[in-house]
Amino acid sequence: MSKTIYYISGGSSGLGFQLVRQISAEPSNLVIASARNLERSPKLVDISNARPNVKPITVDVSDEASVQTIKTQIKKIGVDHIDVFISNAAIADSFYTIDKTPKEVFLSHYITNTLGPILVYQQLYDYILKGNTKKIIFVSSVAGSMGNFFPVSNCAYGQSKAALNYTSKVLSAELANEEVVVVAVHPGVVSTPGGVIASKKLLELQPELKSTIETLTISEEESVRLLLEIIKNLKLEDTGKFLNNDGTEIPW
Amino acid sequence: MSKTIYYISGGSSGLGFQLVRQISAEPSNLVIASARNLERSPKLVDISNARPNVKPITVDVSDEASVQTIKTQIKKIGVDHIDVFISNAAIADSFYTIDKTPKEVFLSHYITNTLGPILVYQQLYDYILKGNTKKIIFVSSVAGSMGNFFPVSNCAYGQSKAALNYTSKVLSAELANEEVVVVAVHPGVVSTPGGVIASKKLLELQPELKSTIETLTISEEESVRLLLEIIKNLKLEDTGKFLNNDGTEIPW
Repeated sequence: MSKTIYYISGGSSGLGFQLVRQISAEPSNLVIASARNLERSPKLVDISNARPNVKPITVDVSDEASVQTIKTQIKKIGVDHIDVFISNAAIADSFYTIDKTPKEVFLSHYITNTLGPILVYQQLYDYILKGNTKKIIFVSSVAGSMGNFFPVSNCAYGQSKAALNYTSKVLSAELANEEVVVVAVHPGVVSTPGGVIASKKLLELQPELKSTIETLTISEEESVRLLLEIIKNLKLEDTGKFLNNDGTEIPW
Repeated sequence: MSKTIYYISGGSSGLGFQLVRQISAEPSNLVIASARNLERSPKLVDISNARPNVKPITVDVSDEASVQTIKTQIKKIGVDHIDVFISNAAIADSFYTIDKTPKEVFLSHYITNTLGPILVYQQLYDYILKGNTKKIIFVSSVAGSMGNFFPVSNCAYGQSKAALNYTSKVLSAELANEEVVVVAVHPGVVSTPGGVIASKKLLELQPELKSTIETLTISEEESVRLLLEIIKNLKLEDTGKFLNNDGTEIPW
């Protein structure tokens, strides 16, 4: 039986690593997981040594030249298609009011969180169209929602996710005839290392949110368990949706 | 009687020039209008010669160093506050499917259409807080709407407007205590020179949209007349909304 092939960006830590761990626990899955720097990704390297169905590659999604090495690296693995692309790599560090947010912070969030997933998609395009179960999942955030807006001063991050959500909407239309399902998902407020730092910075700016955040926070394991349930059940009619981790739709 | 002071970015042509023209027709208004290059903005220079209440300045919103000259240029005009900031400067040229859109096209639309308005806002921040009628209007587009999504392959443009819409939402929250009204507006499909070129390129990619676009298109004069009616009637409770040119709300 041929394996189901996953491509996960940002697989070295946090949600990305947890996705790698839970997906590769099933031997019929093959997981290609990218990290910026494998020397600084001991958990990903360790799991790839322990599990032959984990294939780590080196990609910095914010660097076009690095992204352009993806096809060569995939070829070396001996893979000719991708079934599920999970775009997960992202940064989240823009806790300023807009008048005080440096230009570079806006740019870095846009480049890593919006443009990065697009550049990776462009490299994977041919592989995805040849996939068996054609699914593209953009890990987004309710922090990018306007219809369900929560007043947090985290504009560079939120706008990068709003732009990513828009991109997933356009892509769902462009790939409708190819029977590719494209969704944006909110993984929840997750206690990843990055998530914990982000919550801390947010609370310095807006301490009134403390109990809200504490109530909402879930573990990496739980978040990924929920996401994989959604991914498994995705159908063609789901394309173009923005889904919460319980499978319900989030207003844009 | 003190004048109502408007700041309009991108005032040399299209909607921006039409805004300058109609607003400055009322002598109790003072209009500061920016253009990238006044030597290539004969209409703006002509109207400023004919009407003493039009003050042209040189600003390229995509260039941080240029944006940082705004305060000095405003001081020379002798103004100490801004009542209405209309962020209008934008580009619209990304008619490709996502797999074929060059990285530079994504970046240039983000930098001019999303980051540019933010950098200008940062310069005008102190002036707006001292304004009498504190209004910020981001000229956006229904092309950036996901809730009212129309499948057009114009992703770089649309995502830049989705990110701008998100920004206006955050800003409305951050400035709520200052009684500033912040809205994003859709001016309509307008027969500006840029709009005509954009429609032509879109129809090359998606010819099936011809009659839809022809039916929707309105003149610059009509669009600005509608926008000024909205701006005039903006109330505090409108802050954070995304408004069509008839004043109704557009889904994000």
